[in-house]
Amino acid sequence: MSPSWDAALAGSFSLNQWTTRYWPLPDMVAGCADAGVRGVGLWREPVAEYGLARTAKLVRDAGLSVTSLCRGGFFQEADPLTDNRRAIEEAAELGAPVLVLVSGGLPDGSRDLDGARERVADSIAELAPYAGGHGVRLAIEPLHPMYCSDRCVVSTLGQALDMAAPLPVEQVGVVVDTYHLWWDVDAYDDIARAADRIAIFQVADWVTPLPQGVLTGRGMLGDGCVELRRFREAVEAAGYEGPVEVEIFNEELWAMSGAGALSLTMDRFTEHVA
Amino acid sequence: MSPSWDAALAGSFSLNQWTTRYWPLPDMVAGCADAGVRGVGLWREPVAEYGLARTAKLVRDAGLSVTSLCRGGFFQEADPLTDNRRAIEEAAELGAPVLVLVSGGLPDGSRDLDGARERVADSIAELAPYAGGHGVRLAIEPLHPMYCSDRCVVSTLGQALDMAAPLPVEQVGVVVDTYHLWWDVDAYDDIARAADRIAIFQVADWVTPLPQGVLTGRGMLGDGCVELRRFREAVEAAGYEGPVEVEIFNEELWAMSGAGALSLTMDRFTEHVA
Repeated sequence: MSPSWDAALAGSFSLNQWTTRYWPLPDMVAGCADAGVRGVGLWREPVAEYGLARTAKLVRDAGLSVTSLCRGGFFQEADPLTDNRRAIEEAAELGAPVLVLVSGGLPDGSRDLDGARERVADSIAELAPYAGGHGVRLAIEPLHPMYCSDRCVVSTLGQALDMAAPLPVEQVGVVVDTYHLWWDVDAYDDIARAADRIAIFQVADWVTPLPQGVLTGRGMLGDGCVELRRFREAVEAAGYEGPVEVEIFNEELWAMSGAGALSLTMDRFTEHVA
Repeated sequence: MSPSWDAALAGSFSLNQWTTRYWPLPDMVAGCADAGVRGVGLWREPVAEYGLARTAKLVRDAGLSVTSLCRGGFFQEADPLTDNRRAIEEAAELGAPVLVLVSGGLPDGSRDLDGARERVADSIAELAPYAGGHGVRLAIEPLHPMYCSDRCVVSTLGQALDMAAPLPVEQVGVVVDTYHLWWDVDAYDDIARAADRIAIFQVADWVTPLPQGVLTGRGMLGDGCVELRRFREAVEAAGYEGPVEVEIFNEELWAMSGAGALSLTMDRFTEHVA
């Protein structure tokens, strides 16, 4: 059995903090509450900066749910388990049911892709019971294959599902993010296969040309070529009952006011996703 | 039965013309002959500029084989079949056994990825007998998924093989290009499955950060993280008996002299591929 979401969050808009990257945390929380948003996806760095316990109280007092914490992973680094255990503890303290794992790429100078992937699987297996003990679910995120060498050796949903398969479903799930998966000929079949492994659903659109470094080129919902609504319907058909986190890394969006970016994103969500 | 290659070309270095993009065609042909290169992969635009019949004679007189012609495809454009038939005729006149097909991306403003992929499959099925009649084999090239929207909706070797499967093996094969496939968890299994569908094998290395637009960031052999020799051994184990085309789009390489770039590329080929 996968963790159950508050019924009020099913299909609802959640703002991933990186979409409004430079909006100070207390302003973001107040802005979300004002706009009727029910959930936020948080990132560890701004949470640490504001203070973990202080963030947990701020969000709780505003009546918001933390829908996920970004992120653990990066298993190619020295001693990754210590930091990942800390990330699990942070998620638990924030009341986030999901910790997103970005696996990390190849170690510097390495060409051993198979070895890197094995290391990720082994590390997740080792962390899973610790996560379960804290009521947190690890979510393996496949990132677009253009990030394979330097950020994430998990490149497709199928691969993430195969990695999760031996581990308890309540401890380990996957992230379905439209930006990373839209091109995959197997995406919809894999979503159906994923079923209650889907820990969190994230959306962004795909636009070109890609910027140098390909990190900040995600598209506002509706600006690109992704069948966003089809994806939402697919994850719901697979049994997902959680929120829809909007996570867009985009320089133009980051240049807007937080409230303005939120308003635009919510409008586009209604038009293209809900 | 797939077309058989001249035994002298098996595993041999072939220079894809775009690796030395700005080297004038007659200089490139002379430089390759001087350096003991046996094969070249040509591109339609510089061939047209120099003259089709004139290029065919130039290459033949220098004792070189044309290992492939780049490229047909772009099936989302209006009336793509006319231009692709012309590309087949050009390949035949050059004595190129293989015409590389880059399928094209989504039509402007479209989100119908499934439809675009069907159109590619239908177009190739229609062209295949015409290619066969000209002694030319169509080679479906899966491009890295980062090109899916704007250049090529065929994104994995598995997808290319499924597309080729209903069509005669002597008329339709696939391209195995390390730059596009290295990240794929199924790459080696799909190469084994491909067997005599492998029409041409191309190599480039994967390096980051990717440049703006992600077109000119391919790495010199050995500079990146691709297991190039493992790929060569895998295609040979699958039964491929043709040349190894080196196709690197890289601004630094293009800034070198043609002869210097060729010399560097041949050295790296010996070190990392052969």
